Amino acid sequence: MKSYLSKMGQRTPEPPISWLMQAALSRPRLISLAAGFTDNPSLPVAETRAVLNQILRSPKTGRPALQYGSTAGDPALRKLTAEHLQKLDFQAAVSSSFSPSSLLLELKSRTRAKDEDEKIYSPGRLLITSGSQQLLYMTAEALCDEGDIVLVEDPTYFVYLSILQSRGLRARGVRLERDGLDLAHLEKILQSLKRSGELRRVKLFYLVSYFQNPTGVTTSFEKKRGILKLLGKFERAAGHPIYLLEDAAYRELSFSGRADLPVSQDVQQRVTTIPPSTLAAPGTAERVIYTGTFTKPFATGARVGYGVLPEPVFSAVKHIKGNHDFGTANLLQQLFAHALASGAHEKQVTRLQKRYARKARVMKQAIAKHFPPSVEWWEPAGGLYFWARLPGNVPTGVRSKVFQTALKNDVLYVPGELCYADDAARRKPNHEMRISFGNASEENIREGIQRLGRVLRKFL
Amino acid sequence: MKSYLSKMGQRTPEPPISWLMQAALSRPRLISLAAGFTDNPSLPVAETRAVLNQILRSPKTGRPALQYGSTAGDPALRKLTAEHLQKLDFQAAVSSSFSPSSLLLELKSRTRAKDEDEKIYSPGRLLITSGSQQLLYMTAEALCDEGDIVLVEDPTYFVYLSILQSRGLRARGVRLERDGLDLAHLEKILQSLKRSGELRRVKLFYLVSYFQNPTGVTTSFEKKRGILKLLGKFERAAGHPIYLLEDAAYRELSFSGRADLPVSQDVQQRVTTIPPSTLAAPGTAERVIYTGTFTKPFATGARVGYGVLPEPVFSAVKHIKGNHDFGTANLLQQLFAHALASGAHEKQVTRLQKRYARKARVMKQAIAKHFPPSVEWWEPAGGLYFWARLPGNVPTGVRSKVFQTALKNDVLYVPGELCYADDAARRKPNHEMRISFGNASEENIREGIQRLGRVLRKFL
Repeated sequence: MKSYLSKMGQRTPEPPISWLMQAALSRPRLISLAAGFTDNPSLPVAETRAVLNQILRSPKTGRPALQYGSTAGDPALRKLTAEHLQKLDFQAAVSSSFSPSSLLLELKSRTRAKDEDEKIYSPGRLLITSGSQQLLYMTAEALCDEGDIVLVEDPTYFVYLSILQSRGLRARGVRLERDGLDLAHLEKILQSLKRSGELRRVKLFYLVSYFQNPTGVTTSFEKKRGILKLLGKFERAAGHPIYLLEDAAYRELSFSGRADLPVSQDVQQRVTTIPPSTLAAPGTAERVIYTGTFTKPFATGARVGYGVLPEPVFSAVKHIKGNHDFGTANLLQQLFAHALASGAHEKQVTRLQKRYARKARVMKQAIAKHFPPSVEWWEPAGGLYFWARLPGNVPTGVRSKVFQTALKNDVLYVPGELCYADDAARRKPNHEMRISFGNASEENIREGIQRLGRVLRKFL
Repeated sequence: MKSYLSKMGQRTPEPPISWLMQAALSRPRLISLAAGFTDNPSLPVAETRAVLNQILRSPKTGRPALQYGSTAGDPALRKLTAEHLQKLDFQAAVSSSFSPSSLLLELKSRTRAKDEDEKIYSPGRLLITSGSQQLLYMTAEALCDEGDIVLVEDPTYFVYLSILQSRGLRARGVRLERDGLDLAHLEKILQSLKRSGELRRVKLFYLVSYFQNPTGVTTSFEKKRGILKLLGKFERAAGHPIYLLEDAAYRELSFSGRADLPVSQDVQQRVTTIPPSTLAAPGTAERVIYTGTFTKPFATGARVGYGVLPEPVFSAVKHIKGNHDFGTANLLQQLFAHALASGAHEKQVTRLQKRYARKARVMKQAIAKHFPPSVEWWEPAGGLYFWARLPGNVPTGVRSKVFQTALKNDVLYVPGELCYADDAARRKPNHEMRISFGNASEENIREGIQRLGRVLRKFL
């Protein structure tokens, strides 16, 4: 990379996923279980058309959608999004197994705050963005200087790692367990950063809270509160707030609307206890930055996400967005405002939940049948991904025999090592894989897993 | 601003234009000649609806529009955009008064290059962005480190100045004359930067080339070539390329399709000689970054812009965009791909040109009638803005008597001083105003200018 580019220009490399996608293009028979693309046949073409026709049928409703809006977003969409989030958290509080009544009462009292801006589910805290990805980017801009440290799950969403690398930020990975973050490990890391004098460089913790990318893990509400408590405990030594950035991109893709589908009891249990967001945690909303998306559970070609941010982060991110694009495309915002208000969005979410639950079941059956028993794999209760771990540290990276043989056999997965931060404090695991059922057809899921199973049996 | 925000978070202030817009909201009778919003009644509501229906009428064409695309943009749109740009430059070369045949021949030979990537109007150099604003932002990210210097016109587009401030970049203003940049002044500045040893910090020159925001000035092709030549001359001393970033956001909003409209001979002359872009300048395409937009001449609520970038800037900006949002909303890209292919875009551009020419004429007549003769004002040959200069350095800033009295009399303009960079090398001019005919109705243009004229007469 040429040295006359900026430091950022020089340290922002081709994303590894581009390489994977190009590989896919050159092999017509290839089945990609790598891409996080969403299910094609269930894209809401007719529904989107109906909503857009409704918006554009008259100049009165059509013109505002084709004019500039404001940087923070369309007021109607901000209000609907706030209500939507509140509903999600209330539902989760009702159905949750942990002191449900007290949490619900607490939530209800907080949403009755007199000052509109004080409310946690207030439109005034909501910023509409071009997908939740843009919110992740701008939050890093608003909070972190070069050399700062961001705590992440180990493993985590690889494009987030790319943002950190590009901006010269350091990542520290906190171990992830089957039921979410390892709190003892988080405390150990915070302690060690305190000892080394680096705690003041820690600005935020990035948590992909629901059906995590890449592992499918959902972090429980107790653990989320535990994270917030730990971060709070170290704030004094840090000398400033340490924010929890909750990325809930997959939240609505739970396998819930599927009473007809035979899922394992373990998954059943996990589905019925989808936790509230960290916004619901009493007393800590001022330290939570929450981001979600309308795109993934509806139509990824219409990129609209959102963030809930406390001050002064809200204003800083809003002003930065003014420089990026002074507001997300109004036409797309109106699309989602109408789809939320009419119920079209909820209908599509329910349809997708069933669809993905079915595809996950197909993948589960295929994995159980074709993978060697020594491979450990995690069945998700939502989202788009299975996570598999090979025994004896057999490598799965892009240069590994497993990956290259899989490619020759026309099947593609995401090597687990791409999802780990560069972190001198531990050896980077390299024997895992993310396997997506999002985009492939059921037939291709079966065939792809069979091919992958054949490859794995060769090396195990 | 809290000190625990990043440096960027702390130095990105509320944009001054937000304040102006809020002022507008609280005064229902106020006529805003400030906002750069586009004409509301001519927004192509029915046309957009028809195109979207065409895309979404079947799953076959609808699904790709609702799925993720690639980071660089939709291949069809990139190809159409390259052809569109080539057509604009060819037309300009044919109609231009300066050695037209030789330029045209030169252009034709260069577009026949064998290697697709070598061609200046190649889809491979084109990046689709969320408005041209995003391209401006990412170009600064890819090329400039904190403390670097960006040369700008004096005055220039104020949101660009906000990008520079937010990123800790320094601006140096180069004097603008009625027919474009003052080349002698540019050379003087480059010389002085060379002497002070700061030339190595100069990464690019930002030029708003057509019907500039805020002055309405169009820089001639000769002057553009002159800028490129001067930048090239100082590259050796700089030790790296100095890019020309040409922002052509207003290019298509020329008052051309209006044979029926009485415009002054001076304007007539300027309209018929709309220059080619700097891409057409022989031998220098490797130093040109060009950005344009489909949004402003069609529908600002559907934000799609584009950039033409040479390597290695193209790849760096593309990778940075991967971190921002991994690609502009596909639905909007397909909207413009279809609108370009069907001719709907061109039709709307022609309609808008006539519309704005008419509104500009209304504003001109009102200014001629109501402004004191001591006010100097520039009539544009396209775009959205008149530029006015008060005699005797009577201040026009937000705290000035002129501005405050105007506000009390329910008329708003953009103070000229907001469009000037902080530059210790000159006193910041504070006696000018940008007056927009973009959004106001003809009636409100007349009434607004009459009010403004009354205010001006009070102080002059």
